[in-house]
Amino acid sequence: MKLIKASIVTIGDEILYGHITDTNSQWISAALDAIGIKVLQKLSIGDQTDAILKMLDTTLSESDLIVVTGGLGPTNDDITKKSLAQYFQVPIVRFPEVYSQLEGYFLSRNKEFNVLNQTQADLPSNCEVLINTRGTAPGMWIAHQGKIIISLPGVPYEMKGIMTDVGLPKLKAYFKTPIIQHKLIKTGGIGESTLAMMIDSWEKQLPKSVSLAYLPSAGEVKLRLTAIGEDAHQVKKVIENEVQKLLPIIEPHVYGMDDDTWESSIARWLIEHNYTIAGAESCTGGYVSHLLTTIPGSSSYFKGSIIAYSNEVKKAFLGVTSEQLDTQGAVSASVVETMAQAIQKRLNTTFGYATSGIAGPGGGSDEKPVGTVWIAVASATQVYSQKLQLTSMRDVNIRMSALAVFKLLRKQFQ
Amino acid sequence: MKLIKASIVTIGDEILYGHITDTNSQWISAALDAIGIKVLQKLSIGDQTDAILKMLDTTLSESDLIVVTGGLGPTNDDITKKSLAQYFQVPIVRFPEVYSQLEGYFLSRNKEFNVLNQTQADLPSNCEVLINTRGTAPGMWIAHQGKIIISLPGVPYEMKGIMTDVGLPKLKAYFKTPIIQHKLIKTGGIGESTLAMMIDSWEKQLPKSVSLAYLPSAGEVKLRLTAIGEDAHQVKKVIENEVQKLLPIIEPHVYGMDDDTWESSIARWLIEHNYTIAGAESCTGGYVSHLLTTIPGSSSYFKGSIIAYSNEVKKAFLGVTSEQLDTQGAVSASVVETMAQAIQKRLNTTFGYATSGIAGPGGGSDEKPVGTVWIAVASATQVYSQKLQLTSMRDVNIRMSALAVFKLLRKQFQ
Repeated sequence: MKLIKASIVTIGDEILYGHITDTNSQWISAALDAIGIKVLQKLSIGDQTDAILKMLDTTLSESDLIVVTGGLGPTNDDITKKSLAQYFQVPIVRFPEVYSQLEGYFLSRNKEFNVLNQTQADLPSNCEVLINTRGTAPGMWIAHQGKIIISLPGVPYEMKGIMTDVGLPKLKAYFKTPIIQHKLIKTGGIGESTLAMMIDSWEKQLPKSVSLAYLPSAGEVKLRLTAIGEDAHQVKKVIENEVQKLLPIIEPHVYGMDDDTWESSIARWLIEHNYTIAGAESCTGGYVSHLLTTIPGSSSYFKGSIIAYSNEVKKAFLGVTSEQLDTQGAVSASVVETMAQAIQKRLNTTFGYATSGIAGPGGGSDEKPVGTVWIAVASATQVYSQKLQLTSMRDVNIRMSALAVFKLLRKQFQ
Repeated sequence: MKLIKASIVTIGDEILYGHITDTNSQWISAALDAIGIKVLQKLSIGDQTDAILKMLDTTLSESDLIVVTGGLGPTNDDITKKSLAQYFQVPIVRFPEVYSQLEGYFLSRNKEFNVLNQTQADLPSNCEVLINTRGTAPGMWIAHQGKIIISLPGVPYEMKGIMTDVGLPKLKAYFKTPIIQHKLIKTGGIGESTLAMMIDSWEKQLPKSVSLAYLPSAGEVKLRLTAIGEDAHQVKKVIENEVQKLLPIIEPHVYGMDDDTWESSIARWLIEHNYTIAGAESCTGGYVSHLLTTIPGSSSYFKGSIIAYSNEVKKAFLGVTSEQLDTQGAVSASVVETMAQAIQKRLNTTFGYATSGIAGPGGGSDEKPVGTVWIAVASATQVYSQKLQLTSMRDVNIRMSALAVFKLLRKQFQ
């Protein structure tokens, strides 16, 4: 079976200048991978016609599919359409059905359908339109000598909408693809090399059809197993078999699989057991609550939190005393334990959690340098606290503190 | 003056599979741009030797500088070092000073300096080491026929540390670069095409040395002015002059400039006026508090919040009545106004804000579909509320609600 090879191209000076995060290419990578299309490379280039023309030449020579995002807006700096028309030597023409759809889009929103917006209906004549129901720049599908070029707007939710609604189904129908199966095993609180030595003999016995990768990020390492084959059932079986051998070796460090995040696996655990939770956050400033409420249906387990950033709030709402603050300090086992127990009691939940620390960059001392964080988790009858010594970076400290809360919760109450 | 051209390359199957977000290349782009190096392209390729060799051939032919991240870990799937050695036909040798530094790194953390970690001291013989004080994989600087290749670990804070400490200073010293100056003007709550028509005549009179780009994202559009020249003072003056002409045209929609974010510009405004703030969040689940506390020094203006996810919490802490909930519903002007006023009063701050809505994907009704959100802002004497009709996407709704709170606050109390 032929491997279908793709290049993903993002167009926009803003990407080369580092002014925006390109999340589109990651989403497209994962989406293509999921339908068995192999992404060869990702490329970002500027809003220049010659860069776009050169990119089309290069990528068309090595790819069966090119997915391009960006440069489709109504303004003068958006030149993708013109460049595509020039490359394929076709005119740009008005697509009446796109014009009508756009007119309806603006009317229904009580917005003026101005001249600039009308030009969104002008497209290279050799394209097939991929309808954009979430915005005004249509997607395009161009077939060229058996290869496909898809051009999409750069606004992420418009791009995703077009791909999900029409792009991916059309690709599945057009290409016949092999089976690529991944399994991600997600670990927390253990270093890459320790993990590697722990699973060394397992890794050495992996069959040739399976490859392994380590994906480290702040506070966690993901292991990715990949198998390629022609029979879906067989590929799946090979991977599952290896996972079953691997899990017993690293079980205590695993927090989830595949699309699991720390918060989604905590959410699943809470829901499964009908547990509820509430928080008392100081240094994390609402970030733990935010993570817990990114999950649809979170109201079934998350009742609320007190973000006790100032000591007055810790005293008024969470029963922390002036004496505790004077003798132990706000960043102490005593204070976070009081906070976790108080919020559990006040909101009458299964669990309460608390954080208090020095996120930085200011506020550190010799005794409690930046990165010193105390966390606690409590049930109606028990309370556990833990001291973390993290980094000098505020954002990293906030994130690592939140993940440590989840880990401590699972460890103590699993 | 010669324009120094760079390519940024990220190596790792995990990027092509879409398993991680590549934030490194954005950071490097912005860092190079800031020292006047022009980024031509960004490229992501897989962990395959031939892909790396081909990339070196292609990028060396068109770039003066190549910055490569990834593939430097101690595990078997990390092949960047081997590929570099092969490309430049040099051996991999042990660097004793790196070995000693690594030994100290592990000793000071009470961690075992195992065989795998020791191999981190083995590098291509033609490289100069860029010391990594935050992790175990050293960076490398390779000079080749007047061009520079920098190879860095993929872990973002290690990569940033090496570049900031040694990489960028070395690049500044090595290359003589022209002046590139950007100005970002950030607007909220106005569409790209409306903005474009509003500033059309200003755009048409821009001098040739200045270019304009529109950078739209959820709820906002950034305008980027770019000028290139040889004289820093002159380039700066040209840009400033255009900004002064532009601002009066779009002033009410501008929330900040350059590195400003919604939260940093709100923070600056609060600090300037000695204002304090507290929140009562339902549908945003702590996200507004999180944004407000991402800013260093936020304890000077942010006192705390109640995350009132359940109606019980709204009643117990924020004075919302059962009657209000029964007659108006939790997603109503009445409830968010009560919440905003209550939190302002209870935490004795200058302002209180509140959110309540249906973030989705579930929970909508005909009368209040998913994306219906009420927000309010209050001072000791005034309260204002606003209804938002957002999207079907939970994450977008949470983010847009938070930004709308900031906009309403500035609009009413500026």
